[in-house]
Amino acid sequence: MKFIKDLKNGDRIADIYMCKHKLSATTKNGKEYYSVILQDKTGTVDAKVWEPGSGGIDEFDAPDCIDVFGEVTSFNGALQVNIKRARKCGEGEYDLSNYLPVSSRDNDVMFKELLGIIDTIENPYLKKLLQEFFVNDKDFVELFRKSSAAKTVHHGFIGGLLEHTLSVTKLCEYYCRSYPMLKRDLLLTAAICHDIGKTRELSLFPINDYTDEGQFLGHIVMGSEMIGEKARKIEGFPELLKQELQHCILSHHGELEYGSPKKPSLMEAVALNLADNTDAKMETFTELLQNITAPGWQGYNKFFETNVFDTRL
Amino acid sequence: MKFIKDLKNGDRIADIYMCKHKLSATTKNGKEYYSVILQDKTGTVDAKVWEPGSGGIDEFDAPDCIDVFGEVTSFNGALQVNIKRARKCGEGEYDLSNYLPVSSRDNDVMFKELLGIIDTIENPYLKKLLQEFFVNDKDFVELFRKSSAAKTVHHGFIGGLLEHTLSVTKLCEYYCRSYPMLKRDLLLTAAICHDIGKTRELSLFPINDYTDEGQFLGHIVMGSEMIGEKARKIEGFPELLKQELQHCILSHHGELEYGSPKKPSLMEAVALNLADNTDAKMETFTELLQNITAPGWQGYNKFFETNVFDTRL
Amino acid sequence: MKFIKDLKNGDRIADIYMCKHKLSATTKNGKEYYSVILQDKTGTVDAKVWEPGSGGIDEFDAPDCIDVFGEVTSFNGALQVNIKRARKCGEGEYDLSNYLPVSSRDNDVMFKELLGIIDTIENPYLKKLLQEFFVNDKDFVELFRKSSAAKTVHHGFIGGLLEHTLSVTKLCEYYCRSYPMLKRDLLLTAAICHDIGKTRELSLFPINDYTDEGQFLGHIVMGSEMIGEKARKIEGFPELLKQELQHCILSHHGELEYGSPKKPSLMEAVALNLADNTDAKMETFTELLQNITAPGWQGYNKFFETNVFDTRL
Amino acid sequence: MKFIKDLKNGDRIADIYMCKHKLSATTKNGKEYYSVILQDKTGTVDAKVWEPGSGGIDEFDAPDCIDVFGEVTSFNGALQVNIKRARKCGEGEYDLSNYLPVSSRDNDVMFKELLGIIDTIENPYLKKLLQEFFVNDKDFVELFRKSSAAKTVHHGFIGGLLEHTLSVTKLCEYYCRSYPMLKRDLLLTAAICHDIGKTRELSLFPINDYTDEGQFLGHIVMGSEMIGEKARKIEGFPELLKQELQHCILSHHGELEYGSPKKPSLMEAVALNLADNTDAKMETFTELLQNITAPGWQGYNKFFETNVFDTRL
Amino acid sequence: MKFIKDLKNGDRIADIYMCKHKLSATTKNGKEYYSVILQDKTGTVDAKVWEPGSGGIDEFDAPDCIDVFGEVTSFNGALQVNIKRARKCGEGEYDLSNYLPVSSRDNDVMFKELLGIIDTIENPYLKKLLQEFFVNDKDFVELFRKSSAAKTVHHGFIGGLLEHTLSVTKLCEYYCRSYPMLKRDLLLTAAICHDIGKTRELSLFPINDYTDEGQFLGHIVMGSEMIGEKARKIEGFPELLKQELQHCILSHHGELEYGSPKKPSLMEAVALNLADNTDAKMETFTELLQNITAPGWQGYNKFFETNVFDTRL
Amino acid sequence: MKFIKDLKNGDRIADIYMCKHKLSATTKNGKEYYSVILQDKTGTVDAKVWEPGSGGIDEFDAPDCIDVFGEVTSFNGALQVNIKRARKCGEGEYDLSNYLPVSSRDNDVMFKELLGIIDTIENPYLKKLLQEFFVNDKDFVELFRKSSAAKTVHHGFIGGLLEHTLSVTKLCEYYCRSYPMLKRDLLLTAAICHDIGKTRELSLFPINDYTDEGQFLGHIVMGSEMIGEKARKIEGFPELLKQELQHCILSHHGELEYGSPKKPSLMEAVALNLADNTDAKMETFTELLQNITAPGWQGYNKFFETNVFDTRL
Repeated sequence: MKFIKDLKNGDRIADIYMCKHKLSATTKNGKEYYSVILQDKTGTVDAKVWEPGSGGIDEFDAPDCIDVFGEVTSFNGALQVNIKRARKCGEGEYDLSNYLPVSSRDNDVMFKELLGIIDTIENPYLKKLLQEFFVNDKDFVELFRKSSAAKTVHHGFIGGLLEHTLSVTKLCEYYCRSYPMLKRDLLLTAAICHDIGKTRELSLFPINDYTDEGQFLGHIVMGSEMIGEKARKIEGFPELLKQELQHCILSHHGELEYGSPKKPSLMEAVALNLADNTDAKMETFTELLQNITAPGWQGYNKFFETNVFDTRL
Repeated sequence: MKFIKDLKNGDRIADIYMCKHKLSATTKNGKEYYSVILQDKTGTVDAKVWEPGSGGIDEFDAPDCIDVFGEVTSFNGALQVNIKRARKCGEGEYDLSNYLPVSSRDNDVMFKELLGIIDTIENPYLKKLLQEFFVNDKDFVELFRKSSAAKTVHHGFIGGLLEHTLSVTKLCEYYCRSYPMLKRDLLLTAAICHDIGKTRELSLFPINDYTDEGQFLGHIVMGSEMIGEKARKIEGFPELLKQELQHCILSHHGELEYGSPKKPSLMEAVALNLADNTDAKMETFTELLQNITAPGWQGYNKFFETNVFDTRL
Repeated sequence: MKFIKDLKNGDRIADIYMCKHKLSATTKNGKEYYSVILQDKTGTVDAKVWEPGSGGIDEFDAPDCIDVFGEVTSFNGALQVNIKRARKCGEGEYDLSNYLPVSSRDNDVMFKELLGIIDTIENPYLKKLLQEFFVNDKDFVELFRKSSAAKTVHHGFIGGLLEHTLSVTKLCEYYCRSYPMLKRDLLLTAAICHDIGKTRELSLFPINDYTDEGQFLGHIVMGSEMIGEKARKIEGFPELLKQELQHCILSHHGELEYGSPKKPSLMEAVALNLADNTDAKMETFTELLQNITAPGWQGYNKFFETNVFDTRL
Repeated sequence: MKFIKDLKNGDRIADIYMCKHKLSATTKNGKEYYSVILQDKTGTVDAKVWEPGSGGIDEFDAPDCIDVFGEVTSFNGALQVNIKRARKCGEGEYDLSNYLPVSSRDNDVMFKELLGIIDTIENPYLKKLLQEFFVNDKDFVELFRKSSAAKTVHHGFIGGLLEHTLSVTKLCEYYCRSYPMLKRDLLLTAAICHDIGKTRELSLFPINDYTDEGQFLGHIVMGSEMIGEKARKIEGFPELLKQELQHCILSHHGELEYGSPKKPSLMEAVALNLADNTDAKMETFTELLQNITAPGWQGYNKFFETNVFDTRL
Repeated sequence: MKFIKDLKNGDRIADIYMCKHKLSATTKNGKEYYSVILQDKTGTVDAKVWEPGSGGIDEFDAPDCIDVFGEVTSFNGALQVNIKRARKCGEGEYDLSNYLPVSSRDNDVMFKELLGIIDTIENPYLKKLLQEFFVNDKDFVELFRKSSAAKTVHHGFIGGLLEHTLSVTKLCEYYCRSYPMLKRDLLLTAAICHDIGKTRELSLFPINDYTDEGQFLGHIVMGSEMIGEKARKIEGFPELLKQELQHCILSHHGELEYGSPKKPSLMEAVALNLADNTDAKMETFTELLQNITAPGWQGYNKFFETNVFDTRL
Repeated sequence: MKFIKDLKNGDRIADIYMCKHKLSATTKNGKEYYSVILQDKTGTVDAKVWEPGSGGIDEFDAPDCIDVFGEVTSFNGALQVNIKRARKCGEGEYDLSNYLPVSSRDNDVMFKELLGIIDTIENPYLKKLLQEFFVNDKDFVELFRKSSAAKTVHHGFIGGLLEHTLSVTKLCEYYCRSYPMLKRDLLLTAAICHDIGKTRELSLFPINDYTDEGQFLGHIVMGSEMIGEKARKIEGFPELLKQELQHCILSHHGELEYGSPKKPSLMEAVALNLADNTDAKMETFTELLQNITAPGWQGYNKFFETNVFDTRL
């Protein structure tokens, strides 16, 4: 496959790309045309269909994958694809991971690992709560497995929420072995649920942007509310336990100025904040190192607020 | 009535006081006695019942009001009442406002005024939501009318939540007249509901202290969740409207570091934060001026972070 | 009238515009020409007079309004007016509000309202002080009525200072009714005078930029000094009252880091800060909503430090 | 002389002390007595005159110096002087520096040095301004020479304002020699005037406390206003020069949060802030080292925000 | 053994306590006596030897353990032991952990575990460096094993530095397994060495207080310098590797305001900061929970900056 | 000499410039060419050698000075030199100060002045330490005299470190005369050594950029370590004196957030911080005023965090 980042003026292309955006417009001469943005995992490129009614142009729309035949030209210093033929593809014809960022880890394997941890929870109410989300709520499960964990920063890819959740949860398991005062059932339940609000804060790929309720309420409050709702439906769920769990969710950013309406008051809440912060920083630095093009000093990094360096040894 | 702040060593008392706290204990010699704290609106005083089994001592407990006969002595530099007789009083025998701080404004009048404002809301969903709380939910109404708005700072008295809510709401009405871009229905609904979470954050008088869920979740998140629950039960309640309303509640402290998980994104949310802040500061300064004992400079005030002065003119 | 924001390449214009800036220059070939910036209330456009000595070109300079005949061309991607004829207009020929931002409220009406409030002040010294400024000092009155309240943010238009002052003063009147501990005479006098230093901090339109003394001293200190000077000339003006009034001016930004050399120590000073802040935020959001081009999320707003949204309902 | 810090239970005293405070009161038995506080430079002690009408007790009041004959007793764990005889002293009988903190440097010598620097100013307007304050305004000169520079921190003694002013001015002279871009006349004038507002911010000893206008306006704004007034009376004083000078005064605390309404915009304003800060810190550390009782680590110091140590070498 | 916290007025004691402090003094009547502070792990108590020359009083001094026979009296509201006989004990007579706080984990076991991790380092220079400290430098090893990790907060006991170091190192081992971009040799070496400067920043128990160089330089800079010195003595130690390792030490507090002169620029430096922070918080909360006396809310905690609660479940 | 800032399209040049950067590249047609950056003290310009193999092109590389013959053309809106001939120059052919920024003060004179101050140190250990650096360590002396004091801000030129050090030291001498509690030997030694770490933090001109160890460790820690090393080699150097001196170096930035791992605990450390800060600000403002092109307001200055003005008078 010819990736978008490698296109050059004068190329001919005959490959499948995702249609990220499509708009019908009219030239100054009154002729209809389509203005399209094509996308693959390496980038995007403008494209035009100057003859929408001609034989080789299928009906298509974002986010279809389309088999494009065309020419690459240069317009105002930017590349533009002149689309001659466009055929809408079926699901088996392409590998989605060529078009959207996807976790490098197998989604099924990760989810099975998460379910395995849920099985080890002993407290019946917490276990039931987790099962309500991760076993019985099919819509939630599908969203959860596809969601990214962020719009731009770490884990910003399909499956990113699952990958981040699993990593945080396993780090919390390690904590439980090292610091025996921690209540394992509460900490692991909180870890598994800490970012479930993100399934509603961000829309799915290819959009992966903040929703209205994401901006108005935020994943922290939505996650806490989701837990409150589910818990209310579980008979006998202890009120204090519900509050402790919601408190862990609400306080997991650690500081008021990071958007948590409460600071952590429980040892498990402190631990969850540490695990979340650790995974965020380690994954961010990993992604940074995976994307460097020259060794040595990488310049100022806004997330780490200093110049960063790829360790030699 | 002889108020506690006026008691002196050697006084005899024969008056009704509230029992704030009562504990059975044993002297070194193995004799049982009661350790009691008596309270009225002017303060508290330690008291002892050395002869619990004697004839004149009724069964009583906090927060009963008891008719006390006893002597004031001095012990280790502090006053102590030696209780000789104690009789538990019935509801009609005393005026509660002598024992607990109560709003100076009539509760019925204030509540009627609030209901009058609710009547003016035009949006049917918002009006229905308000009625569900303030008309149909009797338990809520009782709590709301008795609650204070704070443990220690402004409006820390019975009826304080109602008084503060009404004051904020009327200030928002003024804003609507002055700044026509404001959506009156949304702003007034948000104003009326902005502190409803306080009915669960603080326990009622005479305790008036933070509850567990108050500490774990806080009135901001609880208030938003209460609105979410009620709205879900109103058929057809527009999703975006619900989010806008919840956003106003969540952001009404104005800054993340003041415990709001979101900063205000709507003009109404900004207005609510201003009205809440204005009433808090005006009431705090009013209470401060009402309690000064000498004119002039009042020393450093932690709330206003400077020395304060009672304006001459 | 054809507004500048609507000009297109190829247009011919024959309308009155304000000359914002004019410069004589020489082409590479040694020919003199004028480089001009034309302005109306919708924006500015570059213009050239290539034949300054030709018959149709009057003597003119900034900030004259000139009747222009010319052609709109495109140069380096920006529009440019080629001025063929230019005639300097007299005062009656144009409506200034087409060329400069002006308050949407009538200046006479607003000023009369302000004078009406001054009439209600009972303290003779404060009333006299206000009259010295707003009745007897004609130069001050003219400046005050024409001034904007800011260079870029809220109320940045002719009459803005008057509009903002009136709005703050009326909000303070509302406070006085709601919070009876406030001394009305002091608060309203302080409100009316709080930004008088802006008459010297900013030059008038069309420049509307900081003056030297504005940058060196600032309107807070200048306003306080102006009050001090006037008060010294009023026989018997009580020294403490003068200090309280100046204190309200000095502290009206509320925090040292916002440029107030003192934090508010008086209830009236606290109230003035709240009213000023409220009007600033409400007007800023109003102007923002008046200028949006598409509904929904308006992106990050620096003043409110968050994404803003135009409320649906 | 027997200093107050050395008094012990059982001592007899026959020495001159300053009366800091005197109050007539009545014992429970209805007998009149005087409650007095005696002071010398080493501290204060409570005292009582139990027989005000007896022969040996003169009329006296704060801040008289009185020749006391009496006995030191212990009451409630604190020392108390039982005054038997008290005679009001005349001015020549005592050395004021035994009773109030006084600069260790000779006031006349320092003031002459300051006048000598004023003589070197070349700009006629600045020189005239300085002479108006320091030569022609006798009341100001007397206040200026007696004032302390602070209530509690550095230079908190009679003559402290003069000593601090001179030290800052001479440091600025050094700067002028090292950094030739500095305008000497402006910098030295600003240095000499930078704290003149303190003559009104603090009352004189023995009170040495903030005045009303000190708390309402502060010495920074008052100093700027004093300069403005004097400059207005000097014919032809250049407006811009006045503003530059006032700006140096207003900005000499360097940061808004330290009470300066403007940050320094001129090189001379930056220099003045540095000189003021340097002298404040050096004098504070000097006073600290002069008062230590044991060598080594002196514990946490609030001003320097760290543990301090007296340098060995 | 009768612990100090259980002593009551009137008790007789005949037990071994540590002498924390001893001073010879003279009574008002000129008689010599000893003023002593006795200590065990539960607290301290004042004690007096009124007859130092009498037969039963051995020569002893801090920090000897002495076998005391005496009586507990009450003086000025505090307990005081009147020592009748005092015998200095030999090393075998008492269990030091009764007198000083000691890690609950076996020192030999922990140190062996640390040496085992050092064995797994593959880089020859880093391994050699670790061996120079932890195998060949006997003085260092003794200090390191006895040191506490803090004066007051977490791990403030004998062996605390070893326990904290081991815990941080093992957490870093977990990170290496989870985040493969981390260079294990660098991270584990940095973890093992991160607090070695504390061997010189704090004196050993029973004093456990900051040394002069601890206050002047701090353990961060001292630790970095110690590594620099050792590395210079290892032939061929790569310069860049030395800098990377020192950088990890210097930046391990994560932020400049926490005393790190550099922020972490390497992924390993970020990881070390996270591990150190995690262990500090988990151990602090563990110690807090181990010391609570009543369940529920534990009040405001300065370290966690919020109210804390012992999790129920 | 024709300076780079004066080059215009169409110029011919025949002058010596420094080669700042040189790269071999290949045109689309496969022809080799050189891409070069030429530099003098007024700026840099791109240049190309299109015929590297032609007779007139010497071998050269950065940072050689080369005698260039060529033409100035305009490419994409920027100037470009087409190099026809290029000859590498020998050391005597050019004046380095035309190509690199150099202190305006004579290096020998400044260094002699510094040595003169070293001669006045009385403490034998401090004097020996200074001589070890500034007399006996020839490599250090050469580096120290050539180094700049900064990459971009004040004293960013050859000799800048020496000039800044001398200026700070002389200011400290002034302090010693004004504040006699200061220990002169310690303060002057600390002043002379305070920035010696900069000899390793920044590489020499023409690069003048941060080194690896500069970024990893910083000049503060490196300077302290350099002193520690030298002091250890001087027999009998008092341990406490070494710590006091290192403390002055470590704390000379004054605040943790400015990169000092300790705040100043000694009067000399406070003084050094003040002197360093004073010289930095005075030199920065001096350089700013030397580079202004139009009088009056110079716009916002990031270093001084406000608008700056060139003082008129």
